[in-house]
Amino acid sequence: MGKKSTSSRELNLSQRYRIPAGGKFRLADVDPADTGGLDKEHAKGALARGIERLDELQERLYAQDRWGVLVIFQAMDAAGKDGAIEHVMSGVNPQGVQVFSFKAPSSEELDHDFLWRGTTRLPERGRIGIHNRSWYEEVLIVRVHPGILAGQRLPKAVLSKSIWEERLEDIAAFERYLARQGYLILKFFLHVSKEEQKRRFLARLDEPEKNWKFALGDIREREHWDAYMKAYEAAIRATATELAPWYVVPADHKWFTRLVVSEAIVHAIERLKIQWPAPALKPEDLAAARKALARD
Amino acid sequence: MGKKSTSSRELNLSQRYRIPAGGKFRLADVDPADTGGLDKEHAKGALARGIERLDELQERLYAQDRWGVLVIFQAMDAAGKDGAIEHVMSGVNPQGVQVFSFKAPSSEELDHDFLWRGTTRLPERGRIGIHNRSWYEEVLIVRVHPGILAGQRLPKAVLSKSIWEERLEDIAAFERYLARQGYLILKFFLHVSKEEQKRRFLARLDEPEKNWKFALGDIREREHWDAYMKAYEAAIRATATELAPWYVVPADHKWFTRLVVSEAIVHAIERLKIQWPAPALKPEDLAAARKALARD
Repeated sequence: MGKKSTSSRELNLSQRYRIPAGGKFRLADVDPADTGGLDKEHAKGALARGIERLDELQERLYAQDRWGVLVIFQAMDAAGKDGAIEHVMSGVNPQGVQVFSFKAPSSEELDHDFLWRGTTRLPERGRIGIHNRSWYEEVLIVRVHPGILAGQRLPKAVLSKSIWEERLEDIAAFERYLARQGYLILKFFLHVSKEEQKRRFLARLDEPEKNWKFALGDIREREHWDAYMKAYEAAIRATATELAPWYVVPADHKWFTRLVVSEAIVHAIERLKIQWPAPALKPEDLAAARKALARD
Repeated sequence: MGKKSTSSRELNLSQRYRIPAGGKFRLADVDPADTGGLDKEHAKGALARGIERLDELQERLYAQDRWGVLVIFQAMDAAGKDGAIEHVMSGVNPQGVQVFSFKAPSSEELDHDFLWRGTTRLPERGRIGIHNRSWYEEVLIVRVHPGILAGQRLPKAVLSKSIWEERLEDIAAFERYLARQGYLILKFFLHVSKEEQKRRFLARLDEPEKNWKFALGDIREREHWDAYMKAYEAAIRATATELAPWYVVPADHKWFTRLVVSEAIVHAIERLKIQWPAPALKPEDLAAARKALARD
């Protein structure tokens, strides 16, 4: 561990980007290029310590088997969701982590309410569930592209004028319910700038091993950048709560994004103060078990 | 069809037992022995017409593929849930109906939030889903027997003093969300009297072919009758809404219960005014298809 005065946990870095009440939140107040005054070298060490700590916390979570952890990632393309999940979670026992990536809804999924595909993949107690995209897509891409809503096979009678406010209200109410059911909920918006996205798209075109990550549609979505930013801001305002906070994480520097995400997850699980379960057997039972095995 | 003046649909029988706003609801105001002034012979004919009509409505629902219908049954033991489901739904194409009976939660179910097992079994669009018992068990049997709550593996931090009010609020919010997603929701409480339950239990003991339906635990639950009635009243008060109404159906006479349930479901689906989908092909396409087949 580093010296107390400089360790990232003491700096409590992630709290700066935590939005526990969204009412007055403005996306413009978070600079995508921010690095919190840290340098890359320091961040690497802090991230390594965070990964170790997360592995330990996850083991406790699993042993206690009461809390579930739901971590949601949302972002524009190339903001670094996949990389953040890989780098932050790769030190943790895969038995305790479940990652789901949500793409365009399947026909079966469209045949249900929009929360359905997320709820059927909620982590069990004692597990960390990662949702790479989530039910928030329903108030982001669907809001930006009304044609998608038209394809959702909803009866006309329920297509109200305030559908986006209703969906945000529904999501907030459902997350409040999940918190009451013992879910720790953390939501990350990786906030990348339009310029940095352009640089990363160009890299995907230039480097053959990154080509597969590129689709022409990704470029067309850039035309809707402002509409997306408005939709994100509205979503964060309506659904950031003490029990299901958003973290708006600067994402122009990947090393910084990853550190903030790691620190936020570690900090939030630490606050649960999970104890190891009491041993099921008394000392005399343990002694008896040892004797029995010795005789075997 | 019977004469207009006497048909049960014109009488609009089920509306008498519909609770669209529960605030002031009192269970004592509904007499379990009520038969709405009808006689058994008339009811039989009306039920037969209801079954026919429901089959037709279900076909439309399936063809349109937009609305889902969720029908919840709750009741004390021997109130007639199974029989009502059998008699009301047995004329409908099974492809469009999904019945789930919820028993004591499994270990996998306890590893999730309490809505989970119900949501994973929600009907798809175009289907009627019947839940024989439901998420309401969480504010009924669990409320009457605190020991069950203790077994739900919830972290202590979320066991609030107002847990029952919170659960009712969560259920109401979730059902509001489902309604917004295109679910027609109908909730039936089959209201049987304690005396009639006793008679039915005795019949289960006396008739060998009914023995299998009897468990000793059922008798012990009678000691908690008043607590159950209080829990039902609180649940109905907190969750009866225009879009997810409760029907409190007199259940001392099975023939009457079944008629009211059938009439309520038929009436509610009729109010959706579902049209047959427009044909995918134009008349000239149909003609061309006929020609192509003729040449085949």
